[in-house]
Amino acid sequence: MAVGDLQKTVGRNLRTYRLQRGLSQEAFADLLGVHRTYMGGIERGERNLTLKSLERIAEQIGVDPRELMTPRD
Amino acid sequence: MAVGDLQKTVGRNLRTYRLQRGLSQEAFADLLGVHRTYMGGIERGERNLTLKSLERIAEQIGVDPRELMTPRD
Repeated sequence: MAVGDLQKTVGRNLRTYRLQRGLSQEAFADLLGVHRTYMGGIERGERNLTLKSLERIAEQIGVDPRELMTPRD
Repeated sequence: MAVGDLQKTVGRNLRTYRLQRGLSQEAFADLLGVHRTYMGGIERGERNLTLKSLERIAEQIGVDPRELMTPRD
């Protein structure tokens, strides 16, 4: 695993979560109380999130932060 | 789970890892290529680590970053 993979996995999982609920990036960003462009950066795996930011997001959507860090299929 | 718990869990797990190997904070910091005071802050759960920093540390000690985030008994 290379450094940076974790934020990419988190981004992909958040995107999957959002799409499964049929939400736009904007609606999802609103839901999480963050800016749409910031959320876009997270989904693309470009944001080097802190543990606290990850915790806040995970808490707001009711998932375990470690689950967001786990690659799917 | 409250925001900030994750960094406390990571800190506790790193301290356990270090003590199990009989390393001083200084030796452990050297091993990880970080400063001793920075490492002390991480162990005390005071550092809001980024995912990349967590990945680097986990990689250097050969553990899964998610394992470092998992509370032990």
